[in-house]
Formats: sequence, structure tokens, C-alpha cells
Amino acid sequence: MSALPAVAAVDWGTTRMRVWLVDEAGKVLAERRGDDGLITAQQKGFSTILEGHLAALGAPEALPVIVCGMAGSRQGWLEAPYVAVPAPIGAILAGAARVPGQQRDIRIVPGLAQRLADAPDVMRGEETQLAGSGLPANGRHLVCMPGTHSKWVLVEDGAVAGFGTWPTGELFSVLAAHSILRHSLGEQPKPVAPDSPFFQEWCRSALAEGGDVTSKLFSIRAAGLLQDLQPDDAAACLSGLLIGGEIASAKRRYGAGAAPVALVASGALASLYGAALDLAGLAVRSVDADEAVRAGLVEAARENGMIARSGVAT
Amino acid sequence: MSALPAVAAVDWGTTRMRVWLVDEAGKVLAERRGDDGLITAQQKGFSTILEGHLAALGAPEALPVIVCGMAGSRQGWLEAPYVAVPAPIGAILAGAARVPGQQRDIRIVPGLAQRLADAPDVMRGEETQLAGSGLPANGRHLVCMPGTHSKWVLVEDGAVAGFGTWPTGELFSVLAAHSILRHSLGEQPKPVAPDSPFFQEWCRSALAEGGDVTSKLFSIRAAGLLQDLQPDDAAACLSGLLIGGEIASAKRRYGAGAAPVALVASGALASLYGAALDLAGLAVRSVDADEAVRAGLVEAARENGMIARSGVAT
Repeated sequence: MSALPAVAAVDWGTTRMRVWLVDEAGKVLAERRGDDGLITAQQKGFSTILEGHLAALGAPEALPVIVCGMAGSRQGWLEAPYVAVPAPIGAILAGAARVPGQQRDIRIVPGLAQRLADAPDVMRGEETQLAGSGLPANGRHLVCMPGTHSKWVLVEDGAVAGFGTWPTGELFSVLAAHSILRHSLGEQPKPVAPDSPFFQEWCRSALAEGGDVTSKLFSIRAAGLLQDLQPDDAAACLSGLLIGGEIASAKRRYGAGAAPVALVASGALASLYGAALDLAGLAVRSVDADEAVRAGLVEAARENGMIARSGVAT
Repeated sequence: MSALPAVAAVDWGTTRMRVWLVDEAGKVLAERRGDDGLITAQQKGFSTILEGHLAALGAPEALPVIVCGMAGSRQGWLEAPYVAVPAPIGAILAGAARVPGQQRDIRIVPGLAQRLADAPDVMRGEETQLAGSGLPANGRHLVCMPGTHSKWVLVEDGAVAGFGTWPTGELFSVLAAHSILRHSLGEQPKPVAPDSPFFQEWCRSALAEGGDVTSKLFSIRAAGLLQDLQPDDAAACLSGLLIGGEIASAKRRYGAGAAPVALVASGALASLYGAALDLAGLAVRSVDADEAVRAGLVEAARENGMIARSGVAT
């Protein structure tokens, strides 16, 4: 006998969305993925897109929906105001904002704001991944969520103490396409392999520089002129430099700590950051990013009373 | 009675060129500037463009010509092979390469190569500015040449001991145009003023971070969301962050030293770097970049026996 869906969980980003139907116990019953992220939804309407996916999944009309991601931004469906850190993770999730004028109970998880004069920062979506990353309730934990804008989060006794953003993925794309390094990397660099000696050497070198990346960028160009560095290897150098620099910088800011770093990532990024964290001498606990966001959404549904707290099993 | 020209001095960059006629003593008799840099010359021919400028200046047919800059690159008129550092500045200039098949004696000053496995680097054009920057013959001197690709050079007893490139100007343009910061800086940011409190605050903060710039980039975006940072002020933040980061990184690599930093720059860049070096607690000796390259070309003409060494006065 198949279980009935208790809630629909939606990760709604800038360019894509994912919808899961989950039962009372948090078990996935059905899933859909679409390219209709924030940008598409601004034109076609958030409700239209969501209802389309729910209908395709055969979701009941009254099924409640919990959402995280850019759908909750000022340019989104409804602005779910930022929660200021420090804040307990449970309290963050519990503050989901209800979308008005809908037949369903639809709520959007708020993002986080760090209102420090010298390190202002924001996140939206990653707070839900964080909640689903299986952190122990106690102790000091560092979480690394790599991506276009990598987030590092310091969690102390179940509360977000602080966080930072390193735009590593964006720097790679922008420099590869628009800086002088485009001559070094070529038109379409191959994906970088974590065991590339170029990735490893430049990562190691960046780790030794405490987050100073800009002094090494032009050396990739010079290595092409002086050492006949090939385009795919140049891409590995740039990747190693930027990822190593990010880790060195985050380590400098937050310290290494006793517990392993929780690396919340999938696919190629998980391998590259795993290798780089290893080079940095940091122990790692790997968490699949897709599973983390889904588990975080289920937890958010529980915190908002949309499903019962009893059946805890993901 | 007006003096006769002894040599034509040419600074031939990627997008523009400057030609001076100078007398035996190094005094400027006439000057022309053009937009026909390397890129134009690759199409129209280097000889055609040069002879056009010389004719317009009324230069005698046999006047020798000394050239520096990208005209000496592999994509230029004639590749003037890199001189490997460490190397005495006089010896670098003396190695000018003669362009074959020309009626005139035309020579191109070589660039510099730093063939270090972990910090390969090249320069072409700045070596001539360096030679004309009025450094004492003895002692340890740090030279800062800001620009699209800023160069810092360590000179010891008249020889280039090492150098590095910080692509600060390029990072500013590329991030302002192509990264998420374009939303923060707006379409056409105003030139940054060195007394902007945003420039100074972000510069000071970057100076304290030892060259770690990437951890602060996204904070400019977040300050727009959380602190209502305005576009022109965001541009000042980015400028202060990148310039402060460059100086912190160079200081970490080369140490501060006892002698003032020679700042070879003109116009707005000279003011911004002057303010930033001051914030870094570094004493500065200002050198005008235009005058430095001209003086360096005259010195190169002397080192290559194109004009007499006797009349030393610029």
C-alpha cells in the first residue's frame, strides 16, 4: 500500500526548480524537475508554474507546500524577510512566510542576513540545505556549500553563528570568459579532474597564501607563454587556485575546528572540494546537496506544523 | 637656435602609441600621440604607421628609433625575446632587438620574464618605465606601477630581483560588467574619488586581510541589499577592496622596506594608489608614468649607443 503525500517540498532557484511529494515520515513519493526557475516564473506566474507541476504529480488539491530559495526574494513570489544571525536553525525554518490569496497552504522559508558593518552577507536557499545536512545538535561545526556563490556557515549548538560568501564559481566563469585568461583557457575548457596535478599544485599553492588569489591569476597567463601550459591544464590551475583560495580564506576566518567540515555538494563540485579540503588537511563529512535540501524542506514543514513531528525518518 | 633630434622614442602599446623626438641631451623637441597601437598596426603595418608619425613630426630620414611595449611581443613587429630576471636594468635596455630590413636603425627594448615554477610572470613596456623612474643606483627599492595589470618590481642595487602582476584594473572592469556586482555598481559608475569614505573603509579593511579579496566581493552586493549602498559608493568599495588587496599582497610578498615605494602612475590612478599606499603606512615617491617611459626610452637609446652617453639631462 503506497503512502499518501503529506506535503509538497519545493526548491525554487533562479534558473530551475525541483518538486517532491513526501509522506508524513519524510519519504519521497514522487519528484519533478523543471527549468522554470525565478526568471521564468516572473513572466509566467509562480502559481501557474507550481500548480502545473503539482497536477503532473497528481497532488491532492489541499496538499500544503513548503518552498525555499529565490522564490522568497524581493524579485520572487513573496518576499520572505531575512532572519538576522545569530539564530537557531529551527527558529529560522519556523519563520516561513505564508503566500496570501492561495487556496493551498503555501509557505516560503526565509533567507538569512548577517548585518555586520564589515561583513554584510545574505543567503537564500542554503539555510534549508544547512537544516538538512544532518548536523549534531551540539558543538561547533563548519559547513561548506560550494557553488556559484559558495557559502561557509559556522554553526554553534544548533544555531547559525555566522557565514560568508566566496563567489568562486562565478569568478571562474567570468575570468574564463571575459579576462585575459580566456586566451589561456580556450573556448570550451574540459571539466577539471580532482586528480589533475595542475589542480592540485595550484590548490596547494593557494592554500599556502591565506586566501590571496589575485597575485597568482596572471601567472596562469605567464605559464602559457613561458612554460607552454595547455588550455585544459590552465583551467585546472584556475580552478585549483580559486578553490584553494576560498578554503584558505574560510579557514582563516573560522578556524579549522575539531569536528570534520560538512561538505554539502553533488557531482563534480563534491569531488573537487573533497580533494581540496583534503589538501588543506581538513577532515570532511560528505552530504549530498540534493538530499540535504529535501531533508531541510521536510524539517521546515515540521517546524511550521504542516506535517506532524512524530514520524522522523528520512 | 633649436637643437636637432638625436633619436625618436616610441612607446607602442596594445591600443595606443606615443612618439617623441628628443635631442642628444634627452630633451623633448616634439611629441605625437595616436590610437594606432598593436591592434591597428597588425592590420596597417608597423612601418607604415611609424613612418607616418615621423613624417608628421618632420623627423630626418636617418633618425634612429627606440621602441618599447607590445610592438616587441610575439604578435608585434618583431619579437624582442624576454630577458630573464634577476638582471641589471642597464643590461635589459642594452639588449634591444634591431628590426631587420629597415633603412633606419630601429630597435625594440626586450620585456622581462620571471621563470619561477611557482610564480611565472612577464612584463613588456614596464621595464622601460622602471628604467626611467629615477631609482638610486644602490639599495633595495620597491616600485608600484598600477594599471590594468599592475606590476610591482623589487630592485636591488640597480638590478630587477623579481616582480609580480596584480590584474587589479582588469578585475574591476570585468566584475563591474559581468559579475553579480553589475547590479550593485550600475551601468556607468562615476570615477572613484580617493577621499571617498567607502573607498577608504574598504581599502583599510582589505589591507587588514593580507590580500584576501574574494571573501569580501559578495559583501558589496549584500551591502546594497542590507545597507542601501548606492551604485557610485559600491564602485568606490570595489576599487578600495581591489587596490587595498593588491597592496597588502605585494607588501606580504616583498616586505615594506626602508626606502619609499616609487609609485609610477598618472592622473586618477596616481591619486587612488597614493591614498591607498598612505593607508597602508607606506611612504611614497611619486613618479609621473609618461615622463618615466620617455626617460627610460632615452636611457635605452644611450645603452644601445644610438645617442651619446655624455649629455645626461632630462
